[in-house]
Amino acid sequence: MSKLKTLRGVIAYPITPFDAEEKVDIGLFKKLTGRLVTSGSHAIAPLGSTGVLPYLNDQEKEAVVEATVEVVAGRVPIVVGVSNLTTERTVYHARFAEKAGAAAVMIIPMSYWKLTDDEIFAHYRKVAEAISVPIMAYNNPATGGIDMSPALLKRLLEIPNVTMIKESTGDVQRMHYLRRALGEEVAFFNGSNPLALAAFSAGAVGWCTAAPNLIPELNLALYNAIQANDLTNARAIFYRQQELLEFITSKGLPRTVAAGLEILGMEAGGLRNPLAPLAAVEIARLEGLLAEVAPFAAQH
Amino acid sequence: MSKLKTLRGVIAYPITPFDAEEKVDIGLFKKLTGRLVTSGSHAIAPLGSTGVLPYLNDQEKEAVVEATVEVVAGRVPIVVGVSNLTTERTVYHARFAEKAGAAAVMIIPMSYWKLTDDEIFAHYRKVAEAISVPIMAYNNPATGGIDMSPALLKRLLEIPNVTMIKESTGDVQRMHYLRRALGEEVAFFNGSNPLALAAFSAGAVGWCTAAPNLIPELNLALYNAIQANDLTNARAIFYRQQELLEFITSKGLPRTVAAGLEILGMEAGGLRNPLAPLAAVEIARLEGLLAEVAPFAAQH
Amino acid sequence: MSKLKTLRGVIAYPITPFDAEEKVDIGLFKKLTGRLVTSGSHAIAPLGSTGVLPYLNDQEKEAVVEATVEVVAGRVPIVVGVSNLTTERTVYHARFAEKAGAAAVMIIPMSYWKLTDDEIFAHYRKVAEAISVPIMAYNNPATGGIDMSPALLKRLLEIPNVTMIKESTGDVQRMHYLRRALGEEVAFFNGSNPLALAAFSAGAVGWCTAAPNLIPELNLALYNAIQANDLTNARAIFYRQQELLEFITSKGLPRTVAAGLEILGMEAGGLRNPLAPLAAVEIARLEGLLAEVAPFAAQH
Amino acid sequence: MSKLKTLRGVIAYPITPFDAEEKVDIGLFKKLTGRLVTSGSHAIAPLGSTGVLPYLNDQEKEAVVEATVEVVAGRVPIVVGVSNLTTERTVYHARFAEKAGAAAVMIIPMSYWKLTDDEIFAHYRKVAEAISVPIMAYNNPATGGIDMSPALLKRLLEIPNVTMIKESTGDVQRMHYLRRALGEEVAFFNGSNPLALAAFSAGAVGWCTAAPNLIPELNLALYNAIQANDLTNARAIFYRQQELLEFITSKGLPRTVAAGLEILGMEAGGLRNPLAPLAAVEIARLEGLLAEVAPFAAQH
Repeated sequence: MSKLKTLRGVIAYPITPFDAEEKVDIGLFKKLTGRLVTSGSHAIAPLGSTGVLPYLNDQEKEAVVEATVEVVAGRVPIVVGVSNLTTERTVYHARFAEKAGAAAVMIIPMSYWKLTDDEIFAHYRKVAEAISVPIMAYNNPATGGIDMSPALLKRLLEIPNVTMIKESTGDVQRMHYLRRALGEEVAFFNGSNPLALAAFSAGAVGWCTAAPNLIPELNLALYNAIQANDLTNARAIFYRQQELLEFITSKGLPRTVAAGLEILGMEAGGLRNPLAPLAAVEIARLEGLLAEVAPFAAQH
Repeated sequence: MSKLKTLRGVIAYPITPFDAEEKVDIGLFKKLTGRLVTSGSHAIAPLGSTGVLPYLNDQEKEAVVEATVEVVAGRVPIVVGVSNLTTERTVYHARFAEKAGAAAVMIIPMSYWKLTDDEIFAHYRKVAEAISVPIMAYNNPATGGIDMSPALLKRLLEIPNVTMIKESTGDVQRMHYLRRALGEEVAFFNGSNPLALAAFSAGAVGWCTAAPNLIPELNLALYNAIQANDLTNARAIFYRQQELLEFITSKGLPRTVAAGLEILGMEAGGLRNPLAPLAAVEIARLEGLLAEVAPFAAQH
Repeated sequence: MSKLKTLRGVIAYPITPFDAEEKVDIGLFKKLTGRLVTSGSHAIAPLGSTGVLPYLNDQEKEAVVEATVEVVAGRVPIVVGVSNLTTERTVYHARFAEKAGAAAVMIIPMSYWKLTDDEIFAHYRKVAEAISVPIMAYNNPATGGIDMSPALLKRLLEIPNVTMIKESTGDVQRMHYLRRALGEEVAFFNGSNPLALAAFSAGAVGWCTAAPNLIPELNLALYNAIQANDLTNARAIFYRQQELLEFITSKGLPRTVAAGLEILGMEAGGLRNPLAPLAAVEIARLEGLLAEVAPFAAQH
Repeated sequence: MSKLKTLRGVIAYPITPFDAEEKVDIGLFKKLTGRLVTSGSHAIAPLGSTGVLPYLNDQEKEAVVEATVEVVAGRVPIVVGVSNLTTERTVYHARFAEKAGAAAVMIIPMSYWKLTDDEIFAHYRKVAEAISVPIMAYNNPATGGIDMSPALLKRLLEIPNVTMIKESTGDVQRMHYLRRALGEEVAFFNGSNPLALAAFSAGAVGWCTAAPNLIPELNLALYNAIQANDLTNARAIFYRQQELLEFITSKGLPRTVAAGLEILGMEAGGLRNPLAPLAAVEIARLEGLLAEVAPFAAQH
């Protein structure tokens, strides 16, 4: 797991672009993902919520993983989302990711029927036993439908290769609990964009975010200010991007990142139904927010 | 849509049983589903939440639909669950169900990313345009992750073949709103077991439930007492089954129905991971509840 | 407690009217309360939430109790609200009510600091030991700030003269639990207007409501239909008033009852700040709702 | 309002102690409050939630204010809680506080009936017009029962002498909104103990807290580290007290502060019913937490 020692900082989540027939556009995906590496992200995480993992079939997921490995080309670690409703399919995709070269896999316990804590634990254990790379346990009730308690997250860490926790509830108290309960040895990551400052203040080692698709300079500047122990500067940098972070999160990352890329002059592809593009009024709002941050982005 | 005029009463939901290799056990499914018909259910609804629809792959879903049609053999209407995260797959399965002989399809807007009202409306519209049978719009935020407001449900009824609503939030106020807003022409169904009495009192035309797998006599007796305008009797019959209804709902229908069938001496098959059997203490509790209702069940 | 055997049916809650100097207008209060008796209410409950109990000082509360006793003149039982943040003041007002002639007192555990179950139990016990009349334990987190669990409500009934429960959460499941856990010996009352039909269906013996200030005929007709075991008719009568019940509850009973009385041509007095009259648009809406029910009210 | 320019840092909240007859013990109150000044708090806030304001009668409130002014003797500013359900009583106590020498008053919109935004605005305006000292608008739905939206808080600042906001929801996003919407000119204070680090990181100018009754050194050390722009040290100091802060907040400040003072060897007086002392198991837990922080407290 030596590679993972260095997993920290800004973990960037690419979108999965679709063509006019709603097929995955692998060429465009590689272009967008390559940009995330060259703009300075510390790691790349395909097939996250931003990458609309659950809307893809098995073949599409595999193609995205292979494309990521190819375009990243070893420059930064890759963390692949492999979550699935059934344990069997989760094991399958975790193995595929490991073989393809992922440094780690990320798993959110997807729900239709609410799972018990024991079911969730067994799910992670079975996947963990099938692979050798580390697992990032990901809690996000807003998308996955299950809210793993801090106590359950702590229990998951008893599984040897569950070594990282990504918290996206946006509740800073949980981060306090995790930090206190787990000590400084276990890495916890923040997955809630509007909580970026509070999470770093609480001791998060990394920020899992789709924002570098649009404002990589500001995202990295926030992390660097924290690393420099300069809270005054970190706060100033955070407030420059806070409204934008809140907007892109609240309106849905696949929609807002796609719209934002178009606004910034880049090709972004389409969405897969039932997901639909932002409404005109929302696009106008996003244009305003991006225009506001442009000068600050340039200066970093 | 003439067949649907008569869709009312107790709509029974079969479980989907699995064998030791976690494959769907079609033979056992047919046996269990046949029992639901012979015990008096007014309609059969395969591939609902109880039937663990989202945990099945396309081939498995198709096999379950075909098996249902075969075993029901036209004795009662069949309502097939065809929900899927993507619109394309939902259309695919809705068409399959129609061709196979379903009287109607049931659709819950499954969510990973929260959908906007416009996205949900477009999703239903696209499916509706692809088929001729009526659609039951199904609201159940506890499983599907999206809570459709009464106003949105009303809007969905503008689509010609969306003709039925199934409400499973357990909020009787929504039923009041629906009844008042929609009038008596649109059929609304209750999908929350512990709300059965309140929903029938509020004017629900049917009860979508997995309970007939275990206590069909009591379920039907409640409906018959309501039809006879005998509230005093309906109340007495409801309280006999209320604790059991609450238990099977709160612990997860696939788990509790499977356990209950075994307790009653029937083969129930296994679950698919990550879903796991009830704990021993829960099974004991279920045994107690089933023993309590047994004499009443016998008398109806 | 013999008088209480007969406490059931429609328990009417008068408002407390204020004059131009925000003083309690006792003359008007008597007039409004007398009307509630003559229009057929089965009991009168001054100093409830509708009567803005917590906004009155000790002298005002005592004057309201005495005025109620005088105007009711033994025709129906009186249930006096005596809730207070401190136990000492609650005991004081409970004793006052008993001496003045109340058949029962109603107590909601008012909260600033959330109380533990043991604190709530001790609070009721101390008041109960200081009086001889029965106590109606009242649960309404929306106003009182504390949500007493069904288990706590059950425990309160261990106190000899806590004999009635009023549930205002609007959650019909709690009524099911209470009915099942307490049996038919303990009387439970519904305090949520929009839940009137569901609560009666579930077995509530009475309806605590401010609605008889505006539509006594419809309120009583619902109760009578339930008594006649005629659910079909009860449902029809309920739907006639359901939208009005929902409106007056959601906009705040002191405001909506005052506005409604004025619309119906009766003097209603003013409110005490910070409570303010309904906005014009809300008054117009209430006019519409009252006009709709007028023909039905006349026919009952 | 010049005095207020300097209102920032740690605002300490004394408890209101009671004697064996549940009377306010003014002598003990002065002793406890004097300790808060000498241990370094930057301001004193009597009659807050910690001081059980709503459980006191008018005379008791006045005695507490006078005692505070006497014991503080001008060494630090005093912020008096003057909240009341009615506007008339709030005005009365605000005037009393101003005359007695308060630098500011703090007002939470207490609720029985939920107030509309317009009612809340009018309530603050009427009080503001009656006094000359600044008002701290206090939002704490967990005690007051009303949740003022960030937009309403912003609107309240249109009233000339509403100059400060105290947020106790524990939601760091609201602080972000307030800071961004109000700019740096308006002071916002954090009233949620477990959020102390996140709030200071977000730019709060002060921390309203009862914790200095027990651990003043650690509270002040956190503020000083933030002032020194040393996030690493602030984080370390925060985690030393975090578990204690969470405990005293979750179990109710009047109860936990009283218990903690006794553990630390100080007289704390009693509580007023229905509030009751912590249970033995909770006291033991508090002993453990205080023992853990003792060495760190000593070193600051």
